[in-house]
Amino acid sequence: MFMHALSQYQEFVTEYLKSQLEVKEPKNLYEPIHYILHLGGKRIRPVLTVMSAEIFDVSYEKALPAALAVEVFHNFSLVHDDIMDDAPLRRGNVTVHEKWDTNTAILSGDAMLILAYQYFEKYEPVIFQALAKLFSKTALEVCEGQQWDVDFETRKDVTIPEYLKMIEYKTAVLVAAAMKMGAIIAQTSDENANLIYEFGLNLGLAFQLQDDYLDAFGDPETFGKQVGGDIIENKKTYLYLKAMEFANGIDRQELADLFSIQMEENEAKITQVKEIFVNSGASAATKKAIAAYTFKAFDTLDKMNIDEQKKQILRSFGENLMGRKV
Amino acid sequence: MFMHALSQYQEFVTEYLKSQLEVKEPKNLYEPIHYILHLGGKRIRPVLTVMSAEIFDVSYEKALPAALAVEVFHNFSLVHDDIMDDAPLRRGNVTVHEKWDTNTAILSGDAMLILAYQYFEKYEPVIFQALAKLFSKTALEVCEGQQWDVDFETRKDVTIPEYLKMIEYKTAVLVAAAMKMGAIIAQTSDENANLIYEFGLNLGLAFQLQDDYLDAFGDPETFGKQVGGDIIENKKTYLYLKAMEFANGIDRQELADLFSIQMEENEAKITQVKEIFVNSGASAATKKAIAAYTFKAFDTLDKMNIDEQKKQILRSFGENLMGRKV
Repeated sequence: MFMHALSQYQEFVTEYLKSQLEVKEPKNLYEPIHYILHLGGKRIRPVLTVMSAEIFDVSYEKALPAALAVEVFHNFSLVHDDIMDDAPLRRGNVTVHEKWDTNTAILSGDAMLILAYQYFEKYEPVIFQALAKLFSKTALEVCEGQQWDVDFETRKDVTIPEYLKMIEYKTAVLVAAAMKMGAIIAQTSDENANLIYEFGLNLGLAFQLQDDYLDAFGDPETFGKQVGGDIIENKKTYLYLKAMEFANGIDRQELADLFSIQMEENEAKITQVKEIFVNSGASAATKKAIAAYTFKAFDTLDKMNIDEQKKQILRSFGENLMGRKV
Repeated sequence: MFMHALSQYQEFVTEYLKSQLEVKEPKNLYEPIHYILHLGGKRIRPVLTVMSAEIFDVSYEKALPAALAVEVFHNFSLVHDDIMDDAPLRRGNVTVHEKWDTNTAILSGDAMLILAYQYFEKYEPVIFQALAKLFSKTALEVCEGQQWDVDFETRKDVTIPEYLKMIEYKTAVLVAAAMKMGAIIAQTSDENANLIYEFGLNLGLAFQLQDDYLDAFGDPETFGKQVGGDIIENKKTYLYLKAMEFANGIDRQELADLFSIQMEENEAKITQVKEIFVNSGASAATKKAIAAYTFKAFDTLDKMNIDEQKKQILRSFGENLMGRKV
């Protein structure tokens, strides 16, 4: 079957989103939903759902409602996470709880979680149940991941496996589920559906580790956010945890000290921390882990029962994601 | 089919709830869920689900998972509403956001909404879809009702039909849906299912108006909450709106004035307001409306295709609810 280009999938998803979202009464409930969903973003997750459907020989159109469910859920989690992180900005715009208030952000978020389930109603019962089951399992894992993330802020003994589990739940499972939904809608074999889930899970892990890496070493010209943001906030990312594992005694102590304070002026701190990340080998280890997860994703393709040409499309997608600068 | 007593249904629901709830990791996510669900409460909504199943000739056991979904959803809405209302107490105990913090209450609430959907997974696809669809529609209406309630706080022009719509969404639709779920599980006719929904909806409206009435005129000895709570908080209940409609110019002005201030000492205010409620005829009008909704509920029973004995059970239930003191 003919496949579309990524930019086309993005367009289909954006058009569909626009066609489905209306601001109903009460306005104070639906306007914030409209607002957050129109801030844009790369729409990676819904694109993966429609792309996955076409990988398994079903038209992207059939997958649009599920893709929208994934995007609405993702935005629900952003709205509630932004309250918890007290974040002023999202995609360069004011966050919902800042533009309106916390109560509005809580309630509009709740409504988004419910709306996400409603998009699955377009499917017949057996597919509906499969999608809703996968969705509930995934959504609960995302909540658990967020809770681990909150818990880790006040813990000093977070291990690398714990960190990997956290980013798996908070980020990777939704990427994986987004792809598996395409497989479910296409009614491919359970084996293929599970393999595309594995593919998405490993790609999602690579994606998040890449995020950690770019936050410190991204090009300020092309990286969307402030470079060094995680360092300023003392976030225990993969880079930090690996540096604490690898660094010599003096550097380890310095890193721990640097991560126990909040500074007015952060340039010196960022430079020092990045030096330790490089010298300890943490930076190289992170790059290695990103490559390892990407290749683990590619390995699942070998076992998948689809055309070689389709596998190539998925591989290119993974390579692009791994080579990204933003 | 043999029916159980209300107290037995309560016991079945409570036992089932206990058997299903485990505190998993991360504890900070699941402990608050465990806490709120074990604060007790009358379990009216889940009882209605299992009772409705037996009304339509299916064992209560088959309806337990759906009943639990309803109860978990109801408690989700309490957790998030308590944040929004900044309420310190719930059922005489500290609220979740006070015992933990707001972020925990947001995230644990989110997880509860997802858990509610998961309980429907025990049913086969066609019933699953029917239950989940009804649930999503209802849950969204509850959010809309909560938003109207918030909006009404700052509005001076709320009409009686608007108020009735608000309590229908915020309270009555969940009672109605709880009963319809029993009908869906029993796979009775669509007509019966819609009639039991209407029965529940009107009973739910009567129930909420009764709540408004008891808040002002309940017996302090038996009423669970502080009598006059709504008056202290200047809540525009049915009593207030009817008094504003019926009272003469002087009383109407006095009532408006009393409801525009917060006092240190509330006894005098409560007494004055209650006098206006009685003298204007608002109190009698509220009692009349409660009776009217109850009888409207009973009317739907006449059209229902079930044994007369079953109808009598539903009538007794409604009469008990209408005659309640707490």
